[in-house]
Amino acid sequence: MSISVARPASLLASARDTPFFPRMSHFELLKTDAATGARLGKLKTRHGEIQTPVFMPVGTQGTVKAMTTPQVKATGAQIILGNTYHLNLRPGPEVVRAMGGLHRFMNWDGPILTDSGGFQVFSLAKIRKVTDDGIVFNSHLDGTPIHLHPTSCLEIQDALGSDIAMVLDECPPWPCDKPACLTAVKRTVRWAKEFLNHAHTIGFLERGHHAFAIVQGSTYEDLRVDCAKALVEMDFPGYAIGGVSVGEPEHEMLKQVGCVTPHLPLHKPRYVMGVGTPPQLLKMIALGADMFDCVMPTRLARHGAAFTPDGPINLKNEKFRLDAAPLVEGLDNETCRHYSRAYLRHLVKAEEMLGCTLLSIHNIHFFQDLMAQARAHIAAGDYAAWSAAWIARYEAGEKSAEAVA
Amino acid sequence: MSISVARPASLLASARDTPFFPRMSHFELLKTDAATGARLGKLKTRHGEIQTPVFMPVGTQGTVKAMTTPQVKATGAQIILGNTYHLNLRPGPEVVRAMGGLHRFMNWDGPILTDSGGFQVFSLAKIRKVTDDGIVFNSHLDGTPIHLHPTSCLEIQDALGSDIAMVLDECPPWPCDKPACLTAVKRTVRWAKEFLNHAHTIGFLERGHHAFAIVQGSTYEDLRVDCAKALVEMDFPGYAIGGVSVGEPEHEMLKQVGCVTPHLPLHKPRYVMGVGTPPQLLKMIALGADMFDCVMPTRLARHGAAFTPDGPINLKNEKFRLDAAPLVEGLDNETCRHYSRAYLRHLVKAEEMLGCTLLSIHNIHFFQDLMAQARAHIAAGDYAAWSAAWIARYEAGEKSAEAVA
Repeated sequence: MSISVARPASLLASARDTPFFPRMSHFELLKTDAATGARLGKLKTRHGEIQTPVFMPVGTQGTVKAMTTPQVKATGAQIILGNTYHLNLRPGPEVVRAMGGLHRFMNWDGPILTDSGGFQVFSLAKIRKVTDDGIVFNSHLDGTPIHLHPTSCLEIQDALGSDIAMVLDECPPWPCDKPACLTAVKRTVRWAKEFLNHAHTIGFLERGHHAFAIVQGSTYEDLRVDCAKALVEMDFPGYAIGGVSVGEPEHEMLKQVGCVTPHLPLHKPRYVMGVGTPPQLLKMIALGADMFDCVMPTRLARHGAAFTPDGPINLKNEKFRLDAAPLVEGLDNETCRHYSRAYLRHLVKAEEMLGCTLLSIHNIHFFQDLMAQARAHIAAGDYAAWSAAWIARYEAGEKSAEAVA
Repeated sequence: MSISVARPASLLASARDTPFFPRMSHFELLKTDAATGARLGKLKTRHGEIQTPVFMPVGTQGTVKAMTTPQVKATGAQIILGNTYHLNLRPGPEVVRAMGGLHRFMNWDGPILTDSGGFQVFSLAKIRKVTDDGIVFNSHLDGTPIHLHPTSCLEIQDALGSDIAMVLDECPPWPCDKPACLTAVKRTVRWAKEFLNHAHTIGFLERGHHAFAIVQGSTYEDLRVDCAKALVEMDFPGYAIGGVSVGEPEHEMLKQVGCVTPHLPLHKPRYVMGVGTPPQLLKMIALGADMFDCVMPTRLARHGAAFTPDGPINLKNEKFRLDAAPLVEGLDNETCRHYSRAYLRHLVKAEEMLGCTLLSIHNIHFFQDLMAQARAHIAAGDYAAWSAAWIARYEAGEKSAEAVA
């Protein structure tokens, strides 16, 4: 099977706005762990540097749910996500562009990664049709028909002012038969090429924005590897692994990540999309992944759950009624510094919005703190031992009666 | 008609906790406006001093809705309210007491005023029975029968650690026939006496907490005045005017406030409960009122409305779609400093919690800023002219097509 495409001609457009950005050095690989594949890195963007491994909170509709941007920043978050699908439908890219771009619109001065919107079309839009020419679907808000094409997808992300734009891809469901998966992979590669060409045409990359390609292939290792090779030939600034955590068992997910990373360039960032639990993050870091995003910390917060080193706990539990302890003793975030589990339980039971806010602050900080620990242990050279112990404690707690489950 | 009761014997109980508090000097009247009855004052509490006139945000269930306490503090709020009815049902006074009191429970180190819960029984509880012995009602949460008595009402507020406790009163509806209103007034006076006696018995006042009596009487001026006189004889640390803004027209409300304040002691704070709009606050300040509380700023925020000097605006309005201006130009709060009306409109339309938070921050700050201006103009001696101009602009804007309606 061949799914590679010809290398694009360089189409350097005149820069529309400010900084010249030396593309070659945008990702610095500072260290690779000897015992695992864990990497320590530094990714430069138009809105500052990111220390990797990094967890990116999700700001679907131009807000990390229930949090102000100073609260997000205070968790240690270095970069956040915006969802192109949602922002395209509401308020619309023309509104965001008129308001000075997504950073200014939502008052976030750090880097923003925007997804392509493709994944949400598959999960949210009821009526859709996928062809080589893109995706036609109806808005889940008001039924408006929308055509998402590799180039229009880039134009939207450009209007948002994305620091890292994601190519339009076709994310096959799980399970997926191999012929259907091959079609999705071929389309993903074809669209990536069109996306990249257009990025050069409009000077998107030359203006210092990044674009990441997405490796698809479901659970078929050969398709994953072929897809990776074809995309690597195109020389994107970064690579993502998509179509994981779509229902498949964890070992399958880790296998897919592990089979792709060896085929990705060492000196480019690697982003596993839409994952995962704290142990999954640590396991994927060991497989050489650098970047992650997931709605889990904020979504679980809205369901009254909080992460702890002994697994998640659900504040609705009666046992927390008179519990004066913080969620995690000694964790330095606004929630753990000032509030008891008893108070948080009260807010959750009374369905007060502040409960969502305080639990989101804690959960996002918990993930940021975990990534900071991971970076420190990669630097110190004991990532394997540390992460094994961390995972063991977490998973033991998760199995106990106290877990959310 | 006589509704006075004998002056209570002093029943100085041994102090259960810290500060000795010289009762005589707890309220300092700094200035009375010559042209109006507006007063500038300073009320000392166990948790700090309050500059009056003051607006108190409402924290019904141990949280000012959608806001963290640092966000509340940043609006300039000096004191907040807690609702005894709600906190008594959930999480229960025993939980709050065990967690160190309401201040520590909710992480608010400023003063807290708690209402008696009586008003909520009348507005929320479906089944209730009022006798001279108190109120029996069923919880609106689970139907549990609860007996609220003047002394148990104090015990609950003591468990919460209230800085200013309100007596249990009977709030007559509007309209109300005179015999029924007289019964409610007599009961209110009787309960105030029992409340005060018990406050001395348990050393509540001697420990530096305040207790305010509530003047009732619906729209009957003679009953209002008699009620005020009877309560003033008991020598409470402060007086409230209750049973206003319960459906009566504004001129009626102002008449009731205006007929009571001349009968209240000059050197005690006066609190008008559950009001009002910004112009109403300014009008009641001119009638000699010092303290106010209202859910309006946070409730309107949750409905997408924001206060401006030209009346409230509703962010759902299409006209704000591309409006890059802040809610109020130059107003120094987090919302006006960083966010456009277009962004706030987007959050409201997308039903994002952050919309409630940012609008609540703005609305509460708007009220605090208004009170700060009022204090400055009383001090400067031009309160009458300033407040007339302020009200005229606001009411003119309110009448325009742009108002919330």
